Amino acid sequence: MNILITGGAGFLGARLARALLAAGSLSLRGAPARPITQVVLADRGPAPADLLADARVRSVQGDLLELLARRDLPAAGTDAVFHLAAAVSAECEADFDLGMRSNLDTTRALLDACRALGTTPVFVFASSLAVFGQQPGRPALGRVGDDTLPTPQGSYGIQKFIGEQLVADYTRKGFIAGRSVRPMTVAVRPGRPNGAASGFFSGMIREPLAGERARVPVGPDTPVALASPTRTIEGFLRAAQASDAEWGPRTAINLPSLATTVGEMAAALEQVAGPQAAALLDWQPDPAIEKLVRSWPGDIAWDRARGLGLASDASFEAIVREYAAENPQAVRLALR
Amino acid sequence: MNILITGGAGFLGARLARALLAAGSLSLRGAPARPITQVVLADRGPAPADLLADARVRSVQGDLLELLARRDLPAAGTDAVFHLAAAVSAECEADFDLGMRSNLDTTRALLDACRALGTTPVFVFASSLAVFGQQPGRPALGRVGDDTLPTPQGSYGIQKFIGEQLVADYTRKGFIAGRSVRPMTVAVRPGRPNGAASGFFSGMIREPLAGERARVPVGPDTPVALASPTRTIEGFLRAAQASDAEWGPRTAINLPSLATTVGEMAAALEQVAGPQAAALLDWQPDPAIEKLVRSWPGDIAWDRARGLGLASDASFEAIVREYAAENPQAVRLALR
Repeated sequence: MNILITGGAGFLGARLARALLAAGSLSLRGAPARPITQVVLADRGPAPADLLADARVRSVQGDLLELLARRDLPAAGTDAVFHLAAAVSAECEADFDLGMRSNLDTTRALLDACRALGTTPVFVFASSLAVFGQQPGRPALGRVGDDTLPTPQGSYGIQKFIGEQLVADYTRKGFIAGRSVRPMTVAVRPGRPNGAASGFFSGMIREPLAGERARVPVGPDTPVALASPTRTIEGFLRAAQASDAEWGPRTAINLPSLATTVGEMAAALEQVAGPQAAALLDWQPDPAIEKLVRSWPGDIAWDRARGLGLASDASFEAIVREYAAENPQAVRLALR
Repeated sequence: MNILITGGAGFLGARLARALLAAGSLSLRGAPARPITQVVLADRGPAPADLLADARVRSVQGDLLELLARRDLPAAGTDAVFHLAAAVSAECEADFDLGMRSNLDTTRALLDACRALGTTPVFVFASSLAVFGQQPGRPALGRVGDDTLPTPQGSYGIQKFIGEQLVADYTRKGFIAGRSVRPMTVAVRPGRPNGAASGFFSGMIREPLAGERARVPVGPDTPVALASPTRTIEGFLRAAQASDAEWGPRTAINLPSLATTVGEMAAALEQVAGPQAAALLDWQPDPAIEKLVRSWPGDIAWDRARGLGLASDASFEAIVREYAAENPQAVRLALR
C-alpha cells in the first residue's frame, strides 16, 4: 500500500507517518489491512531524520502546487492521500492571495491529480474548526455539531469549507473516496510558534515547561475545544479506515473535542509543573486575537466521530503530561 | 451609474436589464437612487434587439472567462454587478470540467476583477436552490431555511455553494459588497428548453399553451418551490438596494417561494386553458429526473427575504396568466 501525506514534514504529518510506519499496515474503507510499502512525505521543508531513515519513506520537497503541476505527485498506485498541507489562519488573513493559492488552488489540483489516477484513492482532508465563526451582529456560537451551518469569518475557514465541498463532490463523482475531518485546536504542539492565531494555546504550556515566559493574549474564561496530537492522528486514521457505510454522508465530521477554558489550561499547567510554571504566564489580552479566538466555537458536538468509536482526551492535565513525556528535552521544570 | 449583467442576454438577464432601464435609476446599499447611464450585457449569445436599441446598453459578447482574462470587463466605474451567467445543472453533471470552469473559475475571475476595481462594487450573485439536496440514506429534506446546512447532491449545487462562500469572503475583505440570493425554480420560462433538469416545470405549461404535447417526467405529487420571473427579478433588485444593515449576514438568502406540486401546476394549466391543455401532458416518469428533482427541497422558508419586504407569487394560476399575457404569440389555445 502506497500512502501520500501532504504537509508530511510538519508536526501532524510526521506524526501521522510515524503512526502508519509503526502499525506497518492499514485498512482502507473497511477492507482487510494491507502492508504499507511506501509513505511519500510531500512538504516545503525537509522530512525529519527518523522518517528519512525508514526505507519505506520517500521525501518529496517543494511547493505542492508546483509539484502537482509537474505531475510529480501522486505516484501511480497511490492508495490513500492525507491532505494536511495548508497556509494557516493568520497567513491567510495577512495575504489573501497566498491563502487562495495554498488552500484552494492546491487542494483542487491535488483532487484533480487523484482523479487522474482513475483508481478512486482514499482522500482524508484535514479541514478545520475555523469553518465555524460568529457572524457580526449575531449571537455567539452555541454548540456546533456535524450538521451546523458553517459561517466562516476568516479566509482560512472559507477556503477549508470550500475544500470540504470539493471533496464531497469529487467523492460523489467517484473520483476519490473522500473523508473531510475537522480537527480541534491541537495542543500541545512542540517546537516554535507556527503563525496560527491559535498558537498561544500550545505556547502557554510549552514555554513555561521550558522555563520561559509566555503571553496569554485572551482572558481565562475563553472557551476552547482541544485535542491532543494523539487523538487527532487517531481521527485521521479512523477516517481512512471506516467503511463507506460507517462513514455516512459526504459532509465533514467534527473530531472529538475536549471542552475547556484557557483558565483551566493554566490550572492544569500548575497541577503538572507547580506555581512557578503558572507564574511564567503573562496575561496580556490582545483585542485582535481575543476577538478572533472568541469567534471560534468552544462547545463542539462530535456525534459522527463518536459513532466511529473515536474518543476525546480525558483531561487537559493528561494532555500536558503526554507532551512532557514525549518531549523531555523541552522540559526544564520539575514535574509533580 | 454603470451596471454589468453577466448572462445579460439570457432570459432572466435581459428581463433584469429591461427592469433597470425602465426604472431609469437605482439605489444601491440604501443610498439615494442615481440615474442609470450604462447597462453592460455580457453573454455568449447576442443581446435581444429591444435592448440593443437602447442607447444606454452595451453588449459584450463572448466567453466570460476569456473576456475577464482580456480585462474587457468590468469597466472602470462599474457600480453594480449582477452575476447570472452559469452552466446549468444537467450540463454540469454531464461535463464536470465545464461546470467547474463556468461556475467556479469564472465566478472567481469575476470577483477578482471586481476587487481590482478598488471601489467595492455591489455584487449580486445568483446562487441556486440546488445547494440543497437530500443526502443518500438520510431522510427527505424538510423545510429548508436561510440557515439550513446545504448538502448539494450535484456539481452545479456544489459550485453555486462555493460561489456563496467566495462572495461572503470577498465581501468581508471589502473587495465587493456581495449579496447572494437563491432563486426558486423560475417558471414559466418562454422559448426553448435550456438543458436544466428543471426545464419541464416551464415546458409543461409553455408547450400545451402553444398547442404542443409536453412530457411530465415526474409524478403529480412531486413538490416544487416556484417563483415567477417578475418575483425573481424583484429579488435581485432588492438585494442590490438593501442597506448593509437591512441585508444582515453575508450568507445567502432564499428568495420567496410559492410551494406547490406538479399536479397542482397541471390543475392550474387546466384552469387557465381548459381540459384540452391538460390533455397535452404526457405523464411519463423518468426515474433519473424524478430522483434528481425529488432531491431538491419543495418547502422553503424565506425569512430574510420577507424581512426585506419581498413577497411570493399569489398562486400558480396567476403565474400562468402572467406568462400568457406576456407571450401572446406563444399561446395558441383559447384561455378562460
